[in-house]
Amino acid sequence: MTQVKNIAILGASGYTGAELVRLIATHPLMNIVAMSAERKAGQEMAEVFPHLRHLDLPTLVKIDQIDFSQVDLCFCALPHATSQAVISKLPKTLKIVDLSADFRLRDPEEYAKWYGGKHDALECQAEAVYGLTEFYREDIKTARLVAGTGCNAATGQYALRPLIEAGLIDLDDIIIDLKTGVSGAGRSPKEMLLHAELSEGAHPYAIGGTHRHLAEFDQEFSAIAGRPVKVQFTPTLLPANRGIIANVYVKGDAERIYEALKSAYDDEQFMQVLPFGQAPSSRHVRGSNFCHIGVCADRLSGRAMVIATLDNLTKGSSGQALQNANLMLNLPEEMGLEMAPVFP
Amino acid sequence: MTQVKNIAILGASGYTGAELVRLIATHPLMNIVAMSAERKAGQEMAEVFPHLRHLDLPTLVKIDQIDFSQVDLCFCALPHATSQAVISKLPKTLKIVDLSADFRLRDPEEYAKWYGGKHDALECQAEAVYGLTEFYREDIKTARLVAGTGCNAATGQYALRPLIEAGLIDLDDIIIDLKTGVSGAGRSPKEMLLHAELSEGAHPYAIGGTHRHLAEFDQEFSAIAGRPVKVQFTPTLLPANRGIIANVYVKGDAERIYEALKSAYDDEQFMQVLPFGQAPSSRHVRGSNFCHIGVCADRLSGRAMVIATLDNLTKGSSGQALQNANLMLNLPEEMGLEMAPVFP
Amino acid sequence: MTQVKNIAILGASGYTGAELVRLIATHPLMNIVAMSAERKAGQEMAEVFPHLRHLDLPTLVKIDQIDFSQVDLCFCALPHATSQAVISKLPKTLKIVDLSADFRLRDPEEYAKWYGGKHDALECQAEAVYGLTEFYREDIKTARLVAGTGCNAATGQYALRPLIEAGLIDLDDIIIDLKTGVSGAGRSPKEMLLHAELSEGAHPYAIGGTHRHLAEFDQEFSAIAGRPVKVQFTPTLLPANRGIIANVYVKGDAERIYEALKSAYDDEQFMQVLPFGQAPSSRHVRGSNFCHIGVCADRLSGRAMVIATLDNLTKGSSGQALQNANLMLNLPEEMGLEMAPVFP
Amino acid sequence: MTQVKNIAILGASGYTGAELVRLIATHPLMNIVAMSAERKAGQEMAEVFPHLRHLDLPTLVKIDQIDFSQVDLCFCALPHATSQAVISKLPKTLKIVDLSADFRLRDPEEYAKWYGGKHDALECQAEAVYGLTEFYREDIKTARLVAGTGCNAATGQYALRPLIEAGLIDLDDIIIDLKTGVSGAGRSPKEMLLHAELSEGAHPYAIGGTHRHLAEFDQEFSAIAGRPVKVQFTPTLLPANRGIIANVYVKGDAERIYEALKSAYDDEQFMQVLPFGQAPSSRHVRGSNFCHIGVCADRLSGRAMVIATLDNLTKGSSGQALQNANLMLNLPEEMGLEMAPVFP
Repeated sequence: MTQVKNIAILGASGYTGAELVRLIATHPLMNIVAMSAERKAGQEMAEVFPHLRHLDLPTLVKIDQIDFSQVDLCFCALPHATSQAVISKLPKTLKIVDLSADFRLRDPEEYAKWYGGKHDALECQAEAVYGLTEFYREDIKTARLVAGTGCNAATGQYALRPLIEAGLIDLDDIIIDLKTGVSGAGRSPKEMLLHAELSEGAHPYAIGGTHRHLAEFDQEFSAIAGRPVKVQFTPTLLPANRGIIANVYVKGDAERIYEALKSAYDDEQFMQVLPFGQAPSSRHVRGSNFCHIGVCADRLSGRAMVIATLDNLTKGSSGQALQNANLMLNLPEEMGLEMAPVFP
Repeated sequence: MTQVKNIAILGASGYTGAELVRLIATHPLMNIVAMSAERKAGQEMAEVFPHLRHLDLPTLVKIDQIDFSQVDLCFCALPHATSQAVISKLPKTLKIVDLSADFRLRDPEEYAKWYGGKHDALECQAEAVYGLTEFYREDIKTARLVAGTGCNAATGQYALRPLIEAGLIDLDDIIIDLKTGVSGAGRSPKEMLLHAELSEGAHPYAIGGTHRHLAEFDQEFSAIAGRPVKVQFTPTLLPANRGIIANVYVKGDAERIYEALKSAYDDEQFMQVLPFGQAPSSRHVRGSNFCHIGVCADRLSGRAMVIATLDNLTKGSSGQALQNANLMLNLPEEMGLEMAPVFP
Repeated sequence: MTQVKNIAILGASGYTGAELVRLIATHPLMNIVAMSAERKAGQEMAEVFPHLRHLDLPTLVKIDQIDFSQVDLCFCALPHATSQAVISKLPKTLKIVDLSADFRLRDPEEYAKWYGGKHDALECQAEAVYGLTEFYREDIKTARLVAGTGCNAATGQYALRPLIEAGLIDLDDIIIDLKTGVSGAGRSPKEMLLHAELSEGAHPYAIGGTHRHLAEFDQEFSAIAGRPVKVQFTPTLLPANRGIIANVYVKGDAERIYEALKSAYDDEQFMQVLPFGQAPSSRHVRGSNFCHIGVCADRLSGRAMVIATLDNLTKGSSGQALQNANLMLNLPEEMGLEMAPVFP
Repeated sequence: MTQVKNIAILGASGYTGAELVRLIATHPLMNIVAMSAERKAGQEMAEVFPHLRHLDLPTLVKIDQIDFSQVDLCFCALPHATSQAVISKLPKTLKIVDLSADFRLRDPEEYAKWYGGKHDALECQAEAVYGLTEFYREDIKTARLVAGTGCNAATGQYALRPLIEAGLIDLDDIIIDLKTGVSGAGRSPKEMLLHAELSEGAHPYAIGGTHRHLAEFDQEFSAIAGRPVKVQFTPTLLPANRGIIANVYVKGDAERIYEALKSAYDDEQFMQVLPFGQAPSSRHVRGSNFCHIGVCADRLSGRAMVIATLDNLTKGSSGQALQNANLMLNLPEEMGLEMAPVFP
């Protein structure tokens, strides 16, 4: 009989921390034994996230109060930079799923360029496995440290990886126009995240190729193609809490593109490719670990659009993290993740 | 070993039908064997509700195409009036949970008064048990036909029943000011339900004591009190999809009221009474079967407010229905219902 | 010919400041000559509020950079406490409309009780006129300093003043259940005001009779009645930016109540009393200076509900302020305020 | 002295009709003398649109009840196809601004192809002027019949016309990724327009080059370029009522593109070009006749993005219509249109 695994969550007072708790709450073989939140140490999770008040959870503590010897796996949902400082000091045998950006980039120079500083935990980086489950599954199973992907980066990769792999599209003319809900920006109060600022409007941000998730696109797409691939990528902030949906404009044959995606994801439980010509909706994956993908041809021949949507807090971060943790702990990959989307 | 139960859902193309499917999808001991939708018969559920496309579900059929001999329990999510016509013709031994208003009122005259017509299935009405689980649990266990409550009616009763029972409040001065999301109004297109009409605004409706759920308040509160009790009740439509939250204004001692609620719900898994003086939020129960209740004293002595919130599609209808079905099928009451709320 | 008036706005970087600019932008006889914002001094308004970029406005400055000798009237949209400190040092002849809470309460002890501190500008308070235009019009015309009302306080008073005046309702049993959009809470970043926290949910706050606008209700209603009147008042925060709507539960004859309101507001351009039995919607006053009022009888005899709605940023604060300024400057009261609501 | 003009509005019960009334309500030289609504004839506008209840408006009538001899200009806000049938029977001397799609396309075959039927009023079409004010101003001044543009079509053209004109971009590689609020879809109840369907999500529609506004892009861009130009265009439906924002991906020099737009719109009152590198927001034009445009370079050299945003009901339809009507009636072009956007 499989034993229940002891889980710690560092940075439990943010949205991805809360999402981890929501998911693990119904996971039959995980038990949360410790949760940290530096500024809110001493508080109960029910005070910080009243929607979790029905759960019997450990009190929030500071990281250094946690006895990691009893922990089978640790989720690290800390801000980037903080994450590398903390993880480099954790026991070297502890299994870790990191949700920050700190271990996503294999090239320290790329890290320095996009994140504005030297990486302070390069030996951890050296062993980190990139956490896009469907494409790094075997490595994740044996990894000690898995680096969760950016939520936008996951969305774009689900649309594009099989196409680049199969050589079906023009690698020099890829545009990802992505729309995202606001929860990905976190819970720290900022003027631009206020309801009064966001409701009933939309605006592009990080325009011109400045969004940090481009570093992941560059790394992954170039690795697949075996040559540099640089996409054009613009995110737009929507008046919605959850959900990312990306229109990916490519040059190639739409039907072959469709077949490639269909075949790539045929055995993937969480990847749903819609019938050819149908568009998915971000609201139809809300609260779930599913990614819906649609493909259409354009009226202009030789052009196609791939549309991918997922919930940024679930498949885009905490759900992905749990899926990876299941693999690392030799549990069924889908355990705790099979809930249907919440609609309406 | 408990056997998997075969489930039918009539009226699966509405929001409560979809919510039933969402919940049953992760229920370990239920299997959906038939789903009806008269106008959409022949379609797949994935076309009607794309968020359920990952599930392997039976094709939608007309009711008369269903072989009920293989069905252990049937959820009936049809419009009122239709429901009584259909249920009166179903096999007399079939266990049924009805989500319509048709079997909620024990007095046919009350039904005629509030729903504007003669009841055509009075013999079914005679055996129907009112489905407010926490208060009719024993009857539900042995019932053949359970009548789901109104979603507003459930919310108000959770706040008030223990107080009336304990004789703690003035029965002649109860005001329920309730706010509700829009999904309770269903999926049929109406001008007043359009996004462009509702977004960024709010308005009371069914004002002056005309909302049909008052019939349930009258029936239940009077029965508890042993004398006629008539509350004042106003619903306000919010720009939100899910969630009901009610401010219930009562005259009585706030601390005794708090103790009565605390004690009434102490052993109830889905009922969460907040610390005295705290207000719940509808967003903290979204997508879950939980009901959060808060109590405060007013600055005016002798007055208190009870605030109750639940998700109208879950605890207010389909979640309640599943909870009752579990009881009727001798399954653990909470099975399939333990998911945490989805926040943010 | 009437001369164009020179206007200053202190605290122009908040929502009420921006709303003043929006309104004055099309006012034919007002010209904004100075705008202050302490922390944003030196910035252009187009940077702080891009929706105003088409306007030719003065650069934001610190208050002490303003030459008040050229100013005909000054709007003060500063936080409470700051406002009294600033206003007590402005020229004693300068006409001022204050939008803060600082000069609303005539009794310094009430101020200290509700706002938690000694009032530091009592001699200004002594000359301040309470700014509920329709009821203090004559005093406002000759006032030097007008104290804008609380937005919730305005809403409740529009529903109740004529009824208390006419002796039509039970003064000891008044409940104001009010729903409000989020812009009234201002632009300072706070966790509870984030889109991700507020969207798709609602929650009561300042429960139990603790909201500061109660001080205005107490003051005004008691003055009208000639005896202490204390109402029960609960606000609920809605997922909407603008708009307040209040259900006011009273005991009295609904038709007489209706007639009293109808007659009170018959000649008031901005007050719209709906046909008896109809409920207003907050979305139908958005962006305008109108207040819509509905009245209905309840099924319980002797009970009525008055529903009042207005836009908190317009009729509830900046529109009211401009209406008062027009009076103080001997301009037509409605000038710059006649725009229709923006719907949808 | 300029005389007040008598205005008729056909199809006043839709959102563009209501928006016309909102705007004309504060127009100093227009007077609405007749409004039609076939199915709602006999009703008052206050019943159909309660936000307009403060206005003294004519009762809704059927079109054949209107005496057009007293009308100076008629706005026609009817559904397409209906519009051509009605307009072809109106007096041949009546000035008309049509808001439907019926007279936008100069080539009858294009009309038939995109709108699925033969055009029945080709002689009206022959005299119709395309209503994109800034580019057809002189023709509009002397036109009898002006065809309002599609709201998406206006947005894309504002971004692209000056660039095509100046030969600054690759004409064979233009992508318009556009996001739109829901009010553009009208007030007729449809399942896909319900709040419960749209809130908190987004989805592309009319994908693959099937949206009818492409016909306008084809016509206009090809005419400017003197050769066929076909763009790729995808709209996404947002959970917002008003506002369109388009990311227009082009190949060309970003700074030259910026200069071309800056110079094209320098004297245009309603066109606001932001500082280079800044992105506009749809919420910052809400309720106004302004169009905000931003330009940025991409990290990939030779690529740029132009972002254009406007309010679909104002600058995208009814505001544009009024701007054109002012020109046709020899009134100041901006009259009744100078209100600032409503934010938040």
